[in-house]
Parts: sequence; structure tokens; C-alpha cells
Amino acid sequence: MIKAGIVGATGYTGEELIELLLGHPEVKITSVSAKINEPKNIADIYPKFKNRIDLICAEPDIKEITLKCDLVFLAVPHTVSMQIVPKLLKAGKRVIDLSADYRLKDTKVYEQFYKTRHKDKINLKKAVYGLPELYRYTIKNATLIANPGCYPTAAILALAPAVACNLVESDSIIIDAKSGVSGAGRKISADFIFTEISEDFKAYKVNIHQHAPEINQVVSKLSGKKLKVTFVPHLLPLNRGILETIYLKKNKDVRGSAKSFIKLYKKFYKKEPFVRIKEEGYYPRLKDVVGTNFCDIGIKEDKDSVIIISVIDNLLKGASGQAVQNMNIMYKFPEQLGLI
Amino acid sequence: MIKAGIVGATGYTGEELIELLLGHPEVKITSVSAKINEPKNIADIYPKFKNRIDLICAEPDIKEITLKCDLVFLAVPHTVSMQIVPKLLKAGKRVIDLSADYRLKDTKVYEQFYKTRHKDKINLKKAVYGLPELYRYTIKNATLIANPGCYPTAAILALAPAVACNLVESDSIIIDAKSGVSGAGRKISADFIFTEISEDFKAYKVNIHQHAPEINQVVSKLSGKKLKVTFVPHLLPLNRGILETIYLKKNKDVRGSAKSFIKLYKKFYKKEPFVRIKEEGYYPRLKDVVGTNFCDIGIKEDKDSVIIISVIDNLLKGASGQAVQNMNIMYKFPEQLGLI
Amino acid sequence: MIKAGIVGATGYTGEELIELLLGHPEVKITSVSAKINEPKNIADIYPKFKNRIDLICAEPDIKEITLKCDLVFLAVPHTVSMQIVPKLLKAGKRVIDLSADYRLKDTKVYEQFYKTRHKDKINLKKAVYGLPELYRYTIKNATLIANPGCYPTAAILALAPAVACNLVESDSIIIDAKSGVSGAGRKISADFIFTEISEDFKAYKVNIHQHAPEINQVVSKLSGKKLKVTFVPHLLPLNRGILETIYLKKNKDVRGSAKSFIKLYKKFYKKEPFVRIKEEGYYPRLKDVVGTNFCDIGIKEDKDSVIIISVIDNLLKGASGQAVQNMNIMYKFPEQLGLI
Amino acid sequence: MIKAGIVGATGYTGEELIELLLGHPEVKITSVSAKINEPKNIADIYPKFKNRIDLICAEPDIKEITLKCDLVFLAVPHTVSMQIVPKLLKAGKRVIDLSADYRLKDTKVYEQFYKTRHKDKINLKKAVYGLPELYRYTIKNATLIANPGCYPTAAILALAPAVACNLVESDSIIIDAKSGVSGAGRKISADFIFTEISEDFKAYKVNIHQHAPEINQVVSKLSGKKLKVTFVPHLLPLNRGILETIYLKKNKDVRGSAKSFIKLYKKFYKKEPFVRIKEEGYYPRLKDVVGTNFCDIGIKEDKDSVIIISVIDNLLKGASGQAVQNMNIMYKFPEQLGLI
Repeated sequence: MIKAGIVGATGYTGEELIELLLGHPEVKITSVSAKINEPKNIADIYPKFKNRIDLICAEPDIKEITLKCDLVFLAVPHTVSMQIVPKLLKAGKRVIDLSADYRLKDTKVYEQFYKTRHKDKINLKKAVYGLPELYRYTIKNATLIANPGCYPTAAILALAPAVACNLVESDSIIIDAKSGVSGAGRKISADFIFTEISEDFKAYKVNIHQHAPEINQVVSKLSGKKLKVTFVPHLLPLNRGILETIYLKKNKDVRGSAKSFIKLYKKFYKKEPFVRIKEEGYYPRLKDVVGTNFCDIGIKEDKDSVIIISVIDNLLKGASGQAVQNMNIMYKFPEQLGLI
Repeated sequence: MIKAGIVGATGYTGEELIELLLGHPEVKITSVSAKINEPKNIADIYPKFKNRIDLICAEPDIKEITLKCDLVFLAVPHTVSMQIVPKLLKAGKRVIDLSADYRLKDTKVYEQFYKTRHKDKINLKKAVYGLPELYRYTIKNATLIANPGCYPTAAILALAPAVACNLVESDSIIIDAKSGVSGAGRKISADFIFTEISEDFKAYKVNIHQHAPEINQVVSKLSGKKLKVTFVPHLLPLNRGILETIYLKKNKDVRGSAKSFIKLYKKFYKKEPFVRIKEEGYYPRLKDVVGTNFCDIGIKEDKDSVIIISVIDNLLKGASGQAVQNMNIMYKFPEQLGLI
Repeated sequence: MIKAGIVGATGYTGEELIELLLGHPEVKITSVSAKINEPKNIADIYPKFKNRIDLICAEPDIKEITLKCDLVFLAVPHTVSMQIVPKLLKAGKRVIDLSADYRLKDTKVYEQFYKTRHKDKINLKKAVYGLPELYRYTIKNATLIANPGCYPTAAILALAPAVACNLVESDSIIIDAKSGVSGAGRKISADFIFTEISEDFKAYKVNIHQHAPEINQVVSKLSGKKLKVTFVPHLLPLNRGILETIYLKKNKDVRGSAKSFIKLYKKFYKKEPFVRIKEEGYYPRLKDVVGTNFCDIGIKEDKDSVIIISVIDNLLKGASGQAVQNMNIMYKFPEQLGLI
Repeated sequence: MIKAGIVGATGYTGEELIELLLGHPEVKITSVSAKINEPKNIADIYPKFKNRIDLICAEPDIKEITLKCDLVFLAVPHTVSMQIVPKLLKAGKRVIDLSADYRLKDTKVYEQFYKTRHKDKINLKKAVYGLPELYRYTIKNATLIANPGCYPTAAILALAPAVACNLVESDSIIIDAKSGVSGAGRKISADFIFTEISEDFKAYKVNIHQHAPEINQVVSKLSGKKLKVTFVPHLLPLNRGILETIYLKKNKDVRGSAKSFIKLYKKFYKKEPFVRIKEEGYYPRLKDVVGTNFCDIGIKEDKDSVIIISVIDNLLKGASGQAVQNMNIMYKFPEQLGLI
């Protein structure tokens, strides 16, 4: 039984972590904290947790957290993590950071997209990018996990086999992404009130979203070339789920060739518990994965081009579910424990 | 052609007023203003109005408004109206106030429910409650209209014939009301963000809502007795529309009698352009009235009790549409002009 | 490990049963069947179950079902159950019927509301109404459970303490009920297409719904008097959840008395794992219970009247969750096993 | 005052046509018909039209229609139009056909995508594609208008200036389209029930949708080359609106050049009453156009590529609004009459 703490327990990913860990047979939540006006029982903040958990949620007190926990999940806004991580690591704790602070290895890129200086370059180097399908073996012994962004998770899993095998033109990758509103976190802003979202649909941060460099970093590494994807996110009038429609051009060598992408993808992800490649002609929809930790991928291959549809639940495989999957790997639990 | 100004143009009722007045053949919008950080073209605030209106929206300047307008609509929060109305009336303008400031004749009740002192008792006396179906003749010559609340409009129209004819027990009126989110105005609060409303439903201000005394005031006057309704509002996960399910007990004299409520209601509202009494067995739904200025009423009469379903579009018959209907009456335009 | 079959696996309650039983440590699903054109893997019908279950769903074959199962869940339309139940019971199986066929003890009432003759009066007598909070001890040894309707579950739990203690006027019980669309099952009808439901809200079967006699039967028994509630259901534009607003008048004896309903309700449900009575001033909303097996109840007590808000997830506590709770009781598993 | 008939009055585009024509000062609706079990007043089919229109809707009787109407709108499913059009034209009527029957000039392509033979090749030749922004002058004197599809309207308006001026690579046009559910018509199918659409999102007919050849036909003609766009439609969980995100590669000649697309587009559509090109940095959302006949276009131009966002209301500019615009042109009414 490991003792886990959640910093940022009042946001959507924090709430989802509580839900998952309450159902996990090898974990006990021992600390919940958040930016909060006054201490309050977490079951009063979320009436749905009444009778299921009984812990006071207060401002994070690092000393107390290190006393109470083996592992700490950081479900906090960007820039907050890098203030907390050094202290937790120093105290010998393992950390899974759901924020963006330790994802981008190039601090210049971080500073360009997050508009702030990076303050913990030392730990940034040690941080392991927590995408199990690519980095399972380094995750095992990591002390600091940079849990991937939601859009990058769906994108990278959809691109990895094609890019790693050098099958597509590297300068023609187009990702048209659509996300439910919980992807924005529990943000109180005029843009996110019900009457502004419901019956509406829009693109935002058109080709300037901060998740693009994260995707670029990982797929560039896979391909051995510096890639730069075109990335346009859109906001769906629904709560949970990401669907990305990805447009690829085949490389000259494979152009005009017989259909083989589905076969390749199935092989690539053969042993993966949470990636499902769909049969020809079926394209996954949000309903197939919402409430689960799966990433479902559908592929339409034409002579010269390939269209890929990739779907995840942004709060599970795109955040808290993946964090629990990483935890399972780190603690040598069965990788699917407490997840579906 | 009358010249109209809108104070509070950036809220939902203000936006709806612009929409309606742009389509009205006898009105020209000459001034739009609102609490706003810096002056901005109203068509930049609402891109949908681009090419249709070209006016700068700035903080309200009463002098300028009185110079530019014959009639002023106040689509402002409660307590703001009573600061503006005295100046506008003094300048000889006619005013239609969509806020609650001039609805409750008893300032003690106002102060109890709106938590602030009433500062304009003089004009409060003159204010005419702008429900045309009951007060058309005083509206004609009014200089200050207190445009009814959304819940009260649906409730009073549904209760008026029964109460005026003394057919129901006065202490057993139960109003179970459900409203779309735009009823709350463009409020930026954690309670109204998409992820808190969508796929959720809740009651609020259970039997303590500020619209209850407004209903009580009008139906008490109609019945000649002091009535107090039970009123529970609920928040629907949709944009527009109010449906109220009203439970009544017949008075002893009419208990057990043959069905006659529908007949009575049809007679009562015979000449009304915006009230439609449905045939037996049909209960109106939001779709029947959203986008229109109608109030549709369905009635189920049993031996001893009556259930009434009343629906309106909260932004039209419940606010801006009714305001335009009042304007049409005040200026002797056909009552349906510019409305559907 | 018990072996369970699901007849009607392709409807919403069937789908939910699969989800619950896949996560239940003491059950193995050994048979899934449904009215279906041709046999198909259940994971192809529901892509979300891929890699989690691998069973062919075909038309129900009673012989095969009795060979493969200890316990059978019937998630079929009304009238279908009573054709299957006699055969299953004869074969010594235990049955949990989620349809309405064995709920109403008076077959005349059944025939009036379900427009068909009852064909299995013998087993109807044996059937136990599966509301654990009232009938836990008879459920234990039952062979046939009539799993309660969704509306009745929320209503009866909200009424039971008041009615059992004779605190309210028995002829003034008004239930204004609102349900998400999944309550109607996977019905393919013009009334249920997205564009007819979204942004709409309506009452239906106004005071003639088939769940009213079910509520009447149970609360009459509790009170010792023949009660007849007023019951008006409405359709919410959302997927899951029921909220009922219940209006009660206190009996003369307790009228004007100090507040005590919350205290009474807390005592009544003290040991119940799935009923939560809220503190004064808090009214539960759908979000508090959707995804769980809880029934949350909020109470507003005034001098002479009481308003109760009761919420459940219609597919869990209102159907499949309650069925699993009943199963847990029948097989002496911990009552909360596999449920939240 | 022209007399207009609507065949197919019970579908969404028919309903919208009634709404628009009721508000049009130069038109009287003289006939409504549809595939219907028994004749019924159109105001009983749509309670919202009560007191606004009083006409019996029955199966279409061509003789009666030709007697009563000058102009006939066909809001019928594909293949139905080509059975009616010859008779109406023969009787000297003008026809605006909202179906796909007269859009594709190549009957082989029609037969490939609509799976049926074309039966009226003679009138197909005469039919004018009713996109006023490109074909206003031929629309003026047309007797048969093929009203464009919803997706093609948004796509063609977004592509026309770039393609006509030969600025983009003709084999790299990618259209990622998203539509509200009303785009599918009032279809009663398991795919369109509320619980299947709400909280879900999916791609469909991935690069095989029947609107792709319609787009290809028009943009090929504009560019003088045979183009073939990549077109992937998606289904949004909302009622109305289409947003298309279009990815283009600049032609070699203009690659790397200064920003000029917005300028070009503004010039191209300078005099158009219903196309609005947005300023740099603003991308239109559904809310900007839903309820109006506008097409709003936002452009992001990079050195080598261009991203275009195009939005319309699928029932207005994408169907009935455009039909009324065409009627206005045909009858020399002001083009905006009765439209916003």
C-alpha cells in the first residue's frame, strides 16, 4: 500500500485522480491540498465523494506532504510545479507532475510558449516524459515524471509508428484537434460560461498552441529529423474527450503502395494494454474511450495519403489515467490496476 | 421613427434588444452603452452584428443619452436602474426598465430580497408593471415601465384567470419552475461555467427566490387576497426558455365540477396576440416558444386539482420581447410589430 | 465466483450491467443476449468494451442460458420478462428482472398501465420488490427480484420516512420529476432524436405515467393508507440522472413544529450505504450522484410544509446499480462490492 | 407579392423556409406539402407556427401546386426532386431545389455518390448552381436553381478567391469540416438519438462524402484545373452551424511572400452582402453566424501555408436562407430582404 498525495485536488484532473485512487487497491490517499481560501473537507467541496473520503483540503504544506506521502501527484497550473518539485525530490519523494513544467527539454521553447522563465533546469534534465508506450523502461525508475499533455498524448500515439518508420513527409503533418471543455481546467472566465460554449464551436490558438512544441519534441526525436506539425485546436461543446484528425502524406518510397498502415500500427502496439487500433473502415468516436484510459486509433489509407483519427478521454489517458498508469509502472503494480 | 437607447447593451437582454430593434421598422437605435473597460464598436463586441449596426458602446453618459434618444431601455443589473431613472425621467424621456428596481411596490419587500435600500420611491409609485395582458391601458401612457421578471411573466399569465375568478385555493399554489442558463445573465462565476452546468440539473434558492414576491404582489391584487406561492426554481442545461409546472387545488365551489378551465382560459386571453392556450391533452414545450414572444399554456384539469404548464422564451416574452411589446403599446404601433 | 447472464445486453441498462459486472470481483459474465438481427461480438456492438470482454451476443436461448448461468439479469422491455421468468425459475436459476413485469402486485393496475394482460401471476406473488433500504431481508433469499423503476426509487426513498411516520397529509403529495434521456432506453423514435431534445424541455404523461402506481403501491403499504401521489415527469436535455422535487404538507399534529425532518431522515437511513441525507440548506444536484449508486436527499422544512429534493443516477441506483446491490445481498457479498 | 409553395415542409429546411417566408414582405406561402400519413394543419405539426400560418399540409399534388404557386421550393430528399421538377417546369413554374439532384453536372459522379440513376438529364443542363457570390447573373433569369449543399457553400466561399487567383497548390487542399446535427435532416435513426450524439463527437464518411464532388466541380471550374479536395466531415453535438478548417499550401510563386490573403479576400467579396472577411487574428465561431445568412471567414497566413476558418448556419446560408437569397435575386427584390 503506497501513500499518495494530491496537490491541486480541486481542479478537474485532481478530482479525477481522487476518483481513480479511491478505486485503486494498492494506494491510500493521505493528503489533498490546493489553492483554497480556507481549509475544507474534500467531501464538502465535492459532495459526490461524501462517505468515500474524509480528508481536509488546505493550502499545500510541503513539510506535511513529505511526512504523509510516498508519492505526490501535482495537478497544479503551469509554473506552480517547478516551485514545489525541487523540495519534494530533495525530501526523497517520487513525483508525477501533470503540469507542463517538465515536459519541454528546451527551456527557450518553454519560455516562448509559457511566457515565463524556467526555474528548475536541474530537475528538468532528470524528468522522464511519462508516455508509457514509448518510455516504459525509463519510467520504471524515474523519480520525476512529466505527465504528457492531453493533445500530445493523442497526437504522438497516432504519429509514432508512421514517424518512427519514416513513412510520411515530415513537413506535411496536419493535426486538426477537437477537445471537450474540461481540457481547459476549471477556469472561471467569460469564455467558458455555459451560454458561450453550448451550441457553439470554435478554433482557438490557431497554430500557436503550447502543445505543438511538445508534439514536435517527441516526434522529432522518433524520426531523427526536426519536425514541425501544423496544429489547430478547437473547443467542443461537451465535457470530456479529445478527437484528432491527422492528415499525412506518404513518403515517396511508400507512395502508391498497398495498404499496410493498419497492419504496421497493430504490430507496433501489439502488447500495449491501452492502445487499440481499429479495423479498416471503422473510425473511433469519443464514446468509445470516454471513461476509460484507452487511446483508440482509426486509419484511412489511400494511395498517397493517410488520415488518422485518434481519440482519448482528456482527463484519463490525457491526464489522470495516464498518471496512474505511470504510477503502476513505477511501483511495479500490474499496469492496468485501477484503470479501465 | 423613434430614437431608442440601450443601457446595458452587453448583457443577454441588451443583445436581444439590439437584435429586435434592428428588425423593427419604426425604431432607430441611436445609443448603446454599458459598463465597459474602454469604448468599443458594438459590432466588435458581437461579431454577429457586423455590417448591421455601427455604434460605439461606452460607459453610459446620461446627458448624451438624453440628447440622442426618445426612449431608453435599461438592461442593467438591479440597483443600477434606480440611479439612472430619475435623471432620464427628469429630462422628459420615457423609460422601459428591465431590471427589478421598479417592480415591487413595497420597498420593504424589495429591501428584503435585493439586500439594498430603495432610493427612488417617488418614481416607484408612477412605475407601471409592464405586463400588457393585464395592464395594457396604463402602459399606453406610462413614462416608466417596470418590465416584469421572466419567471413572474410565465407564472402570472398561467395563474391570472384562475385567481381572478377565484377558482383555486389561495394557499396551495405550487410553482415548480425550470429555466435555461441565459436567465442568469452573462454572469462570470464558477457556478455557470460549461462543465458545471452541462449534464447537470439542480434546484436553487429553494422557496426564497426574489421573483416569488413579484408573483405574490400581482396575483394577490388579482384575487383580492394576500397570496403566497410556493416557488422552486431549477437550472436547465440549455440556453433559453422557461417552463413552469404549476399545481393548483380547486376551490370547494368548483371541486368535482366538469372541465372548464381550458374554456375559461381561452376566453380570458381571446384577444391576446401573444398568449396561446393549448387544446386538452397537449402540453407546450420550450421549442414551441423559443425564438418567439409567445406564452403557451397547457392545462390538465382533474376533478379536484389542476396542473398548468406555462412556457416562454426568457429573453423574449420574459424580457426584451416584452419590452418591445410595451414600446409598441406606448407608441401606438401595432402590438406585434417587429416581434413574432 | 458466480456466473451471470444478461438478457437485453444491447440496451442502456444492459450496457451498464456489463460495465459494472466487468469490475465486480465475484462475478463472471458468461452469457449476453438480446433481440438482434445476427449474432455479433458484444465488443463490436460496443467498441468501448474491446479487449475487456469477448462474448457473442445472440438472441436469447433459454436452454443455453440456464446451462451457463447461476443468476440472470433481465434488462428487457416490459412484457418480455414474464415470458422468460417462468422458464428460468423452473430451471432453478435466480433472476433479477429490471423490467416492470413483476413490480405491481395488482394485475389490474398492471394491465391498465401497461396495456397488456399479465401472464405469470404465480411468480408475481413470489417476486420481491428489490429496494434494499426497505426490503433487504426478503431480498436475501429471493429467487425473483422485481428491480424498482427509476422514478419510484428516487421517490420512495424520499417519501419513506415521512410516510412511515405519518407526518404528512396523504392526499397532498406532489412529485415533480425530471429525468435524463437514457431513462427512456435506447428508443429509436422521432421524439428522441438529438435535434428534438437538445435545447428543449417538456413534461410528458402528465399525471398518467406508469411509475405512479408503483410509487403508490409502496408508499401506501408504508403508511397503511391508500395513497395517490400527483406525479408529473419531465424530460431533461442530458444523458443521465433523475431529480425529483417533492412537495408535502405536514400533518396537523406536526404542523408549526420545530425542524426535525432532516434529523428523522438521517436516523431512518443511518446504516444505509447508498442513501445520503444532506445538511440543512444544501440541495443535491445530479452531479453529486451521476456515476454512483447513491441517492442523495435534501430537505427544506417550513412551518407547515416540506420540500424534498431527491437525486439518483437513473442507470445506476435507478436500474443496474440497484440490480447489482440486490445481487450482492442475495449472494452475501459486501453490499457495496463493485459499486460506488 | 409572389405566391410560393414548399414541398417537403416537415423537414428542417422546410420548417426554416416557412419561418423565413412568413417574415418576408413580398411573399405569400400558398401551399405546403410533404410525405405525410394524413393531411394536417402545418401549425399542428409545428405548434410554434400557431396563429402565424393556417394551411393544410398534405402529400404533394403537382396540379394543385401549379395552380396555387408562382415559385416552388423543393425541400425533399435526394431523388425525389428529379421526379417533380420536370412537371413543375413544364407548367411554367420557377423552382428552387434544395436537394442534390441538380447540383452535379456529371451524372456518372451523381450516380456514384447517390447510388441511383439520374432521370432528368435535360433539366440538369439548364439548372443554375445557386451560389449568388459566384453566379448571381445567371441566377437572375434561371427557372431552375440547384441550391448548393451546406458543406460546399462554406468550402467554396472559403476557397474561391485563392483558387480563382491560382495562389495555392491544387492537390493539397484539406477540408476538415464539422457540422451540427440538423445538417442530417430530421432523420429517425439510431445514430441520431440524443444519447448517441450528446457528449460524443465523431468523423463520418471519411473522405467519401457526397459533398466532396460538389466542391470539386465548382473549384475546378474556378481554377481551370481538375481539383480533388480531401474532405472529412464530423458531427458536432449541437443543433445548427458548420465550421470548416481548411489547410492550404501556397503555390511556389507566392510562397514566402508577405501577407496578402486577407486583403485579397476582402476585395473579392467587397460588395457581397452576406460574406464577411474577418481581421487578422480573429477566427469566426458558430455563434457569429447562427441565425443569420452570413458566411464569416477568418484567415491565418504563414510564409508557406494558409489556414482558413469558414462558418455558416447550415439551415440558412447552407440551405433555406440561401434559397431565399436566390429567390430575391430571381424576383429582383433587394437581396437582403427578409434575411439577416
